[in-house]
Amino acid sequence: MHSFSELSALFDAHFNKKQFPAEPKNLYDAAQYILDLGGKRVRPICVLLANELFTDLTTDAYNVASAIELFHNFSLIHDDIMDEAPLRRGKPTVHTLYGQSTALLAGDVMFAQAYDNLTRIEMRYVKDIISLFNRTSKEVCEGQQMDMDFENLDVVHIDAYIQMITLKTSVLIGASLQLGAILGGAGKDNQRHLYEFGKKLGIAFQIQDDYLDAFGDPTIFGKQPGGDIVANKKTFLAIHAGEVANDIQKQKLESVYKESDATKKVSEVLAVYKECGVDEWASALKQQYYDEALLQLEEVAITSSRKKELYTLAEKLIWRDV
Amino acid sequence: MHSFSELSALFDAHFNKKQFPAEPKNLYDAAQYILDLGGKRVRPICVLLANELFTDLTTDAYNVASAIELFHNFSLIHDDIMDEAPLRRGKPTVHTLYGQSTALLAGDVMFAQAYDNLTRIEMRYVKDIISLFNRTSKEVCEGQQMDMDFENLDVVHIDAYIQMITLKTSVLIGASLQLGAILGGAGKDNQRHLYEFGKKLGIAFQIQDDYLDAFGDPTIFGKQPGGDIVANKKTFLAIHAGEVANDIQKQKLESVYKESDATKKVSEVLAVYKECGVDEWASALKQQYYDEALLQLEEVAITSSRKKELYTLAEKLIWRDV
Repeated sequence: MHSFSELSALFDAHFNKKQFPAEPKNLYDAAQYILDLGGKRVRPICVLLANELFTDLTTDAYNVASAIELFHNFSLIHDDIMDEAPLRRGKPTVHTLYGQSTALLAGDVMFAQAYDNLTRIEMRYVKDIISLFNRTSKEVCEGQQMDMDFENLDVVHIDAYIQMITLKTSVLIGASLQLGAILGGAGKDNQRHLYEFGKKLGIAFQIQDDYLDAFGDPTIFGKQPGGDIVANKKTFLAIHAGEVANDIQKQKLESVYKESDATKKVSEVLAVYKECGVDEWASALKQQYYDEALLQLEEVAITSSRKKELYTLAEKLIWRDV
Repeated sequence: MHSFSELSALFDAHFNKKQFPAEPKNLYDAAQYILDLGGKRVRPICVLLANELFTDLTTDAYNVASAIELFHNFSLIHDDIMDEAPLRRGKPTVHTLYGQSTALLAGDVMFAQAYDNLTRIEMRYVKDIISLFNRTSKEVCEGQQMDMDFENLDVVHIDAYIQMITLKTSVLIGASLQLGAILGGAGKDNQRHLYEFGKKLGIAFQIQDDYLDAFGDPTIFGKQPGGDIVANKKTFLAIHAGEVANDIQKQKLESVYKESDATKKVSEVLAVYKECGVDEWASALKQQYYDEALLQLEEVAITSSRKKELYTLAEKLIWRDV
């Protein structure tokens, strides 16, 4: 069994080769650029972690992990186009640097390249692996569409928001774990519990993300809190506040909606959030999903000493931010 | 053996079911919309035609044909975004109707859906089929990138243009035929000849397309010729004219480059094209690729009576425009 950081080094050694041909240069430079921005590689390492629960790490697991990371970066490129985001990991986004059309195509070609990795694996796994990968990639698109649709709605119900987050973010973590488990020869029950563990962990992570954006300590969090509030983003906190605020609080939220002074806006919204107990509610909800995730991990029928790294991952993701 | 129009009806019966789930509505309505615009379905029918050369039509062939048509429409949606095209088959393009972000995502989800169809086929074919499909989809992206890169170049060599057309358009016809042949149990040589047949036919088709845009009879062609000339598009004709024109002719071409009177511009450019013999050259080049395509078809080792429909397809595509 390897630790997260050992697996991270092993995956990097496998993945950080040149992924693409030289020509057309613009296209493949754009695709390589986002990979070179790095990142924590949480999803591919989930593939490897789950694989190693059941077997020594297989070559197939590295290929599927690479496919997952290519897919994830494809979706980041396209999301950044849709969001007109200028920065990604503190650097210019692909479309900012290479133009929108090349960025769009670079995403497409990475999606195809992901499948290239998937077809390299042992024949007996191909159908199961590609079917789960397909279903998940469609769900990620569906989640992104729901997120965009929500922007045009006045009120979003918390259940719909959780469904959106599940599709947009969580299923890919769940699928990464299940894919690794499939390649390790895990049975259906173990696969399912790992999938659910990842899915629930992903939801807890998103609640944490929304929470930190509002209440995070800037000295730890690395940026001034309140970005979501300034952008009027629908987050776990904003949606819950809309559900529990009394008329006076609602009026206050509406009156600062178009406030141009960011500092004033953030502090006024945070004051309402605290009055409504949104912070405690979010902490409790995060804990609930975190606990549910751990219950799923407990259900995986292997000796618990082998699960240590997954417990550590869960803890790091939710409580210390890997 | 079925005729093109019989296969067309068979494919439609298979394909014209609802391809997507109901929700998120915006996303899947956008994806279904472009499929409902119709089209000649040349590529999927190539899969079926090639399949039937070697066997009775298989369910697998329908699934792969569907994947090819989904892929083709995915690439049309993304191309239309890149080209900022307002119309497709005389109707608003997907991004015009549903917005750019939803169009982008609808393309992505169709690409994933294409792979869904590919994983439905018999296990023994999955790797060969998906590998060829992957290679081809990356080539189509590469061709599109080359096409965009050419827009920023003053001079494009004819060989580079042919390579671009091959990637952007022709390999998908070649691959459609080879995919059908693989599923029919064809040997490697037969697969290769069918691929080359399709590829060369695709190039001949593009030359024809460029030729008709300049010299086509509007009563047959259905639109006023000269669209490519007005848009200063690099076509087979424009590139060859640039290569063979004398200094006076070059001066004339350059002087009308920014001409705002479209009718005047078209007639002056066409006059130079004719002086340079570009029309005869294009006809000869088209004939050359057409002949080379037919030579490849002759090499396919099956009784020639079975090839009849492919000869008809070639003839229709190039001489009468299916």
